[in-house]
Amino acid sequence: MKQRIENVIVWLQDQNIDLCFVQSKENVFYFSQFYTDPHERLMGIFLFKEQDPFFVCPNMEVNQAKSAGWTYEVIGYSDHEDPWELIDLAIKQRQVSIQKLAIEKDVTSYSRAEVLLEITGQPQILSAEEKLNQLRVIKDENEIKIMREAAKLADFGVQVGVDALRTGVTEMEVLATIEYELKKKGIREMSFSTMVLFGEKSGDPHGNPGLRALKEGDFVLFDLGVVLEGYCSDITRTVVYKKATEEQKEIYNTVLKAQMAALQESKAGTRIGDLDTVARKIIENAGYGDYFPHRLGHGLGINVHEYPSMSFTNDEYLKEGMVYTIEPGIYLPAIGGVRIEDDVVITKEGFETLTKFPKEFTIIK
Amino acid sequence: MKQRIENVIVWLQDQNIDLCFVQSKENVFYFSQFYTDPHERLMGIFLFKEQDPFFVCPNMEVNQAKSAGWTYEVIGYSDHEDPWELIDLAIKQRQVSIQKLAIEKDVTSYSRAEVLLEITGQPQILSAEEKLNQLRVIKDENEIKIMREAAKLADFGVQVGVDALRTGVTEMEVLATIEYELKKKGIREMSFSTMVLFGEKSGDPHGNPGLRALKEGDFVLFDLGVVLEGYCSDITRTVVYKKATEEQKEIYNTVLKAQMAALQESKAGTRIGDLDTVARKIIENAGYGDYFPHRLGHGLGINVHEYPSMSFTNDEYLKEGMVYTIEPGIYLPAIGGVRIEDDVVITKEGFETLTKFPKEFTIIK
Repeated sequence: MKQRIENVIVWLQDQNIDLCFVQSKENVFYFSQFYTDPHERLMGIFLFKEQDPFFVCPNMEVNQAKSAGWTYEVIGYSDHEDPWELIDLAIKQRQVSIQKLAIEKDVTSYSRAEVLLEITGQPQILSAEEKLNQLRVIKDENEIKIMREAAKLADFGVQVGVDALRTGVTEMEVLATIEYELKKKGIREMSFSTMVLFGEKSGDPHGNPGLRALKEGDFVLFDLGVVLEGYCSDITRTVVYKKATEEQKEIYNTVLKAQMAALQESKAGTRIGDLDTVARKIIENAGYGDYFPHRLGHGLGINVHEYPSMSFTNDEYLKEGMVYTIEPGIYLPAIGGVRIEDDVVITKEGFETLTKFPKEFTIIK
Repeated sequence: MKQRIENVIVWLQDQNIDLCFVQSKENVFYFSQFYTDPHERLMGIFLFKEQDPFFVCPNMEVNQAKSAGWTYEVIGYSDHEDPWELIDLAIKQRQVSIQKLAIEKDVTSYSRAEVLLEITGQPQILSAEEKLNQLRVIKDENEIKIMREAAKLADFGVQVGVDALRTGVTEMEVLATIEYELKKKGIREMSFSTMVLFGEKSGDPHGNPGLRALKEGDFVLFDLGVVLEGYCSDITRTVVYKKATEEQKEIYNTVLKAQMAALQESKAGTRIGDLDTVARKIIENAGYGDYFPHRLGHGLGINVHEYPSMSFTNDEYLKEGMVYTIEPGIYLPAIGGVRIEDDVVITKEGFETLTKFPKEFTIIK
């Protein structure tokens, strides 16, 4: 954690920023190893160019924050106290004049920013997000180890889903079975709202699981992930139930070919946008270009969607330690959709896929 | 919905506010009946003092917004467009000069507020939240009808949990069973992270369910709720497993007495803070005052925690149509905790409890 804080301090010194305020649960976790959702209560870290940082949280979480690994000052507050008064004091004690302030502009509420601007004397305000995203984008060995376990649990979730398929079962029933088995293993939080979509419903990339019952010939699309020790996994698999048409097989194998091609391009030094382009060309050449309406994937880590964006417009380059998804899809309104998604980490040698559930075209009998 | 929009417009005219921007999924739902989580994408409603409002959302959700019941202009945008350019245009078309702007200050990000301030020429900025909370606090018949159903599902969840108790079962296993049965009924979202806590773990009002196994003599605390058609329920029940001590029984009956006393005070015209005071006195008189560390309850509706706060400091008065929780508790670190929570609506005659799961002291055999 010390190294992460030092990296930010180097940036603060370099940019001459006096104070950086971090309050999203993800970035608080990144700097403190303390993962909790304080809901409407304030929890945050104040990082200074030249002074020691401090952590602010409700009294009842002070001990947890310390035991998670935060070694600097912790300021607890009760429900009857205004944490901003304590913050004001802690900043004053540090005797710093705040001329430039960095905050997470995209997630800090206007009210919070307003109070902080007031107690720091209306300094110039900057976004901390780009820098924090850059720091978080390279995962260390320990992070990758956790993400490998999280991906294994996602694989397990798909297996549970496949095993739960039978004629007449509903999407929600299969979804509930998957989450039940994961929760029994101690998983408290899914990375996002689990998706189980049958038949034509899989043809909507933003479809909602409901009480649609499974029929022979349906595509079944699973999209799910878990949060493990603060890190997310995210997998998509699509199978066909009982019998398949030639068109279903063709769509599936086109998506698979696109997905594999993008995987093969995954190595340090490749332009990120090229992965999307490679996959998209295969889908376009097969005549389904209009039915792949989203980017190839997204960065993955403490957030399920984080930096980098795996879009054809991204001119940055892959680096060792980056973790992201590759998830091309084809969605035909009447027939249904296919998406295949893996979590990928860039290694010294090339890449490793963290999710390992089989991908060949499968008819569930 | 027209009435809700008109109520805001009356306020805008009264306060001479030119524009009110609403973007939380809860308030967007309140005005449009369209309930969706747009994640990082912008979805919002622009309400004017004298002009027609408009709705902004991603293209793919335009039809859903319309069919949910929004009858004014809808502006859709694609992933390649900047929605703020379209918003700028739509505001300019209305030929209004924005001198005063109201936003949801506590939940609108600094970035969004910054862009909106820029395109509206840096007007004075005000909070819309207090007014929106006041509007939302009185539920109409249809809202109460939905909340009654949501509460029924919460009762059902507790029953599933009680039925799942057996020696050695883990908290997460019981939790998973509850959510499984609710999801099978089509519930996609719980109101909050379901709590199932055993024994000493129930003694922490912020405890996390885990792999603690159930033993004879444990308290078992369930705290859960569902989101149904955009509205939340929230119930807590505590039982004892197999056998109970006299102290457990005494704690339980003290909490129950406090809860019933606060319920009996529930009628239009009562000072809200008095409910907390009545319950707190009973717990204090029994010698457990130090072990009831939280407020009596909270308002309930589209948010699981909303206006009003059922705290002894609240000087406002109960009104017909208010819905809130009554949930006193006693938490003893070594022994465990008891909390009993119902959802209550103020009626013409007095009150109705929406949650109806039995509350008498129960030993599960």
